[in-house]
Order: sequence, then structure tokens, then C-alpha cells
Amino acid sequence: MTRVRIEVHLKKGVTDPEGDNVRKALNLLGFKGIRGVHSAKLFLVDMDADDGAHAKADAEEMCRRLLANPVVHDYTIRIEGEAAGAPASKARGSRRR
Amino acid sequence: MTRVRIEVHLKKGVTDPEGDNVRKALNLLGFKGIRGVHSAKLFLVDMDADDGAHAKADAEEMCRRLLANPVVHDYTIRIEGEAAGAPASKARGSRRR
Repeated sequence: MTRVRIEVHLKKGVTDPEGDNVRKALNLLGFKGIRGVHSAKLFLVDMDADDGAHAKADAEEMCRRLLANPVVHDYTIRIEGEAAGAPASKARGSRRR
Repeated sequence: MTRVRIEVHLKKGVTDPEGDNVRKALNLLGFKGIRGVHSAKLFLVDMDADDGAHAKADAEEMCRRLLANPVVHDYTIRIEGEAAGAPASKARGSRRR
């Protein structure tokens, strides 16, 4: 079984009221030095596919067809267990449906 | 500046209607072999603190006081740039407020 992590972020420049309100609330709670807060959605999809490349291609299609709105969202796809931060393991997409 | 990634997950056993509905929708769209979908929230917090340990302690307190509900949520905290999956870089918490 393969677990795919799909992160759906707001694109740069898109208003993030949830993140802004979290920042305000943290300031009110007395936290200092917070420059900004960004909120995002995370989906963990468990698939039968054992082939990472195939799972990633499926996840990419899921984002395009259901999980992300290309007008406001970017998404990143990573197979759980793969190293994070390695550019090859990231697919940042904003393709049209 | 330090960017902290805070993931707020539902605890095991807590109903996840969003995840369930995503799974159903993916099935309806024709995706095969999906065993389950879990939804979670992700917060990226940019802090002035350059000290990772200090930033992590602050993030832990943010979760306890604002971001997570200890009745239904677990959370993981990671400093952006640190290796993912290394047990030492993860703080999974479910402490009371």
C-alpha cells in the first residue's frame, strides 16, 4: 500500500483569511515575532498501487479533477516515506482541468 | 526567520466526513484501489526566532492554546528544512490545555 500526501495551498497573492485570523489570534494570545501564518489542506490518500510513479500520476489527476481549484490553489504531491524537500519528489501543479 | 509546519490531524477513531466524502467522490470519478482518505489542516507559521528548539516550543504552545482541540486532534510540528520522518524532528502531541 502507498500513502500519498497531497497538500493544497492557496496561490501566492490569494487572500488567506484563515491564516490571517490565526496570526491575529496568536498575537492576542501573546505570541511575539510571528511574521505570517498560511493555512492549507492536507489529504492523505491510501492507495493499493505499490508503484510510486503510478500513485503520483493518479494523485496529480485527483488534484486536477477534484481536490484543487486551479484558479486559487497550488498543490504538492509526495509519496510518504520519500525524503521531503528533494525537488524530484515534489510536483507543484497549477494546470487547468 | 524560521518556518514551522504544524499539521493538525483528527485522532484515530474520530469520524472524518471530509475524508470519507473525498474517497466517495474519487470512486465516482473512476479512481480504483483507494483504501482511504484522511483530511487534515496544515499551518505554516513564519517566526522571527532563529532557534529551532525555541520555535518548536512556541508551536507546541500554539497547538495547545489555539490550533488543536485535544479531544479530537493530534498534531505534529516540524521545522521547515529539517528532514521529515526522523522521529526526533516530530512532536506528536495530545496534551490537555
